[in-house]
Amino acid sequence: MSARPEAMDISISDYVNAIGRRARVAAREMSKINTGAKNAALLKIADLIDASKEKLQSENQKDLDAGASNGLSDAMLDRLALTEERISGMADGLRQIASLSDPVGAITDLKYRPSGIQVGSMCVPLGVIGIIYESRPNVTADAAGICLKSGNAAILRGGSEAIHSNQVIANIIQAGLESAGLPSDAVQLIETTDRAAVGELIKMDAYVDVIIPRGGKGLIERISNEATVPVIKHLHGVCHVYIDDKADIKKAVDVAYNAKTQRYGTCNTMETLLVHKGIAKNVLPELGKMYTDAGVELRGCAQTLEILSGINSATEADWDEEYLAPILSIRIVDDVDEAMDHIDRHSSQHTESIITEDFSRARRFLREVDSSSVMVNASTRFADGFEYGLGAEIGISTNKLHARGPVGIEGLTTKKFIVLGDGHIRK
Amino acid sequence: MSARPEAMDISISDYVNAIGRRARVAAREMSKINTGAKNAALLKIADLIDASKEKLQSENQKDLDAGASNGLSDAMLDRLALTEERISGMADGLRQIASLSDPVGAITDLKYRPSGIQVGSMCVPLGVIGIIYESRPNVTADAAGICLKSGNAAILRGGSEAIHSNQVIANIIQAGLESAGLPSDAVQLIETTDRAAVGELIKMDAYVDVIIPRGGKGLIERISNEATVPVIKHLHGVCHVYIDDKADIKKAVDVAYNAKTQRYGTCNTMETLLVHKGIAKNVLPELGKMYTDAGVELRGCAQTLEILSGINSATEADWDEEYLAPILSIRIVDDVDEAMDHIDRHSSQHTESIITEDFSRARRFLREVDSSSVMVNASTRFADGFEYGLGAEIGISTNKLHARGPVGIEGLTTKKFIVLGDGHIRK
Repeated sequence: MSARPEAMDISISDYVNAIGRRARVAAREMSKINTGAKNAALLKIADLIDASKEKLQSENQKDLDAGASNGLSDAMLDRLALTEERISGMADGLRQIASLSDPVGAITDLKYRPSGIQVGSMCVPLGVIGIIYESRPNVTADAAGICLKSGNAAILRGGSEAIHSNQVIANIIQAGLESAGLPSDAVQLIETTDRAAVGELIKMDAYVDVIIPRGGKGLIERISNEATVPVIKHLHGVCHVYIDDKADIKKAVDVAYNAKTQRYGTCNTMETLLVHKGIAKNVLPELGKMYTDAGVELRGCAQTLEILSGINSATEADWDEEYLAPILSIRIVDDVDEAMDHIDRHSSQHTESIITEDFSRARRFLREVDSSSVMVNASTRFADGFEYGLGAEIGISTNKLHARGPVGIEGLTTKKFIVLGDGHIRK
Repeated sequence: MSARPEAMDISISDYVNAIGRRARVAAREMSKINTGAKNAALLKIADLIDASKEKLQSENQKDLDAGASNGLSDAMLDRLALTEERISGMADGLRQIASLSDPVGAITDLKYRPSGIQVGSMCVPLGVIGIIYESRPNVTADAAGICLKSGNAAILRGGSEAIHSNQVIANIIQAGLESAGLPSDAVQLIETTDRAAVGELIKMDAYVDVIIPRGGKGLIERISNEATVPVIKHLHGVCHVYIDDKADIKKAVDVAYNAKTQRYGTCNTMETLLVHKGIAKNVLPELGKMYTDAGVELRGCAQTLEILSGINSATEADWDEEYLAPILSIRIVDDVDEAMDHIDRHSSQHTESIITEDFSRARRFLREVDSSSVMVNASTRFADGFEYGLGAEIGISTNKLHARGPVGIEGLTTKKFIVLGDGHIRK
């Protein structure tokens, strides 16, 4: 179990490197551990969390008190709080991860080659995953669970405002690992609030295989720029719905309303609505009233303003904006090509949806739009690991390489080639 | 078609950025182009190469002459030369790429979810691939062909010593693309020998999705350190064969001899032989003689020296060395665990092979060794895109993320999620 560097009189660099070394050793051990043992550990940790409600809440209270006196906003304090429901949620999340199938060791495509060797590919853990996150302490349990199930070792670095909560959760996880006979170093928390520790972690190529930052755009950009370890990053979501003139009006209204209003602060929320000029007069008046009734501020292009009088005019900057708020920009386009051009220029390549009954346009949109999720007649809000059936989600990747879109357990694995022979040599 | 910046009086930065912008536009077009059109272009380029032998050889002669007067070694000059056989090889390689199946657009795992949406994954091109390579001009055609088939745009930057050869090959490729109705900007050559162009290319995140360096360790390390664009890198290969005491002696001797001597300069050549102490006396005398007869210098651990008298003593540095030469280090180990420990510490995670008839040890080795290729009773020399059935190979990746091991056409693609609904909204 790690101790804080301040108490040990060692440098931040030595401290983080020692964690890295231990994680590397634990990762090698984790890669061999069978599914039953991993599941037993997950269930044990879940039980320990349930049994530690008082302790969790009393430690969490220290963070809440410190946060209040440091002037954290009510929204921040709310995210920081470990309510009884959230504690049960952490335990249930781990039980759900235990119930998922284990991808590690799965062999696919094992085929004989003309030379006589058999070649296939085996799913293996990535190794050591560094996760950097802000405020919500329940991420500590979620992230540890996903790393554990996928056979990886995790190094967790939570926000300083949640340090007491994260410490007690990490202690519970390590106790659960030990009692299930797994290496406790498989999940380590960086127990210093010194920001230099992040700088070390993201450059520790010798020990860390991938960094997953979870938090605001600022955090992620800083980490991406400075890291030498590969980063599975989740930048912003500027998502589009395009209502084609061949759309079913009811479906168009339902989806466009849901994609904006079901939740405002999520990355898969629609930020810009594109509407074919041939159908704008049929859908925008109804949709406009619904949005306005829901308190959504509308910002339209010149043509939109002709239909929806009294709304604000969109500026060029609006098309690139991730509002994360009850604001929507609306643009009328000539056809599906102009819609796809707009998406190509302004999308963050997260999620886009076309609403149409036209088979050929749906087919083109699916093929040609280059985003991590491309949809037909469905709300962008479905872009989510649970909705996609991944079982658990550690984030949504806007990378193109490796994992793209919602990242579940399989996103934390890689492949190796395996070759079976009988004394085969290359001629 | 691009022209050299020196002739255009623009800065290297403006020049490379303009290439990037054109590549991005071409990539979007390429992603939509169907398999038939891509194959037609590949076959057209192959025919043009066959028809341009004289031109290719006269331009190549300029590089050879310049190389000779710049004092290039005979080995370098040999790699630079476009013999008639190599020219035919380029054309045949492109025809072979045309015959491979096209992964782009393939939809897999399309399944209904409880919400009623269908979720699947579609294979899509990465976008713009930057390839940086040295001396061998035939890489220009190979790399362009693989990028083309996988629906990507390529920016090629060959070595300055091959500039005339690369230019004429790139001109042929662009002519072929145009005559097949594909965007000629889909394959662009950086036509300046200024090294600053590489610095620009590897930091051009806005236009380039991935960089593939092909060349010596120095080139690859420099690019990896400086690039902000993701790099599919191929570092060194310190490959191991471990002869278990349950090995069949004949298979052990055949494989260990082949893995070292079939070719010395390749990354999948064995550099260290590990031998179980219980079988060392049965295999090493015969193997030692075979290696010595073939001119291989042997460097052994203390126990090895007791069996093979008169060979050199291995130093600690030998275990980490990629010789790329007729040199082999040999170490005797107590058991499969000590062999795997040695591999864990000294391997470059490229390719390792166990020789054994013991089922359980083979199974453990396959699962526990963390290298891009792990083999049983087969020569490490099989670690190759053609031997694995990938059809074509643009390199061997020692990355863990995205592509690992030999990288073929599929390694230049990624996935996007596709979602089909019927007006589905998230509850």
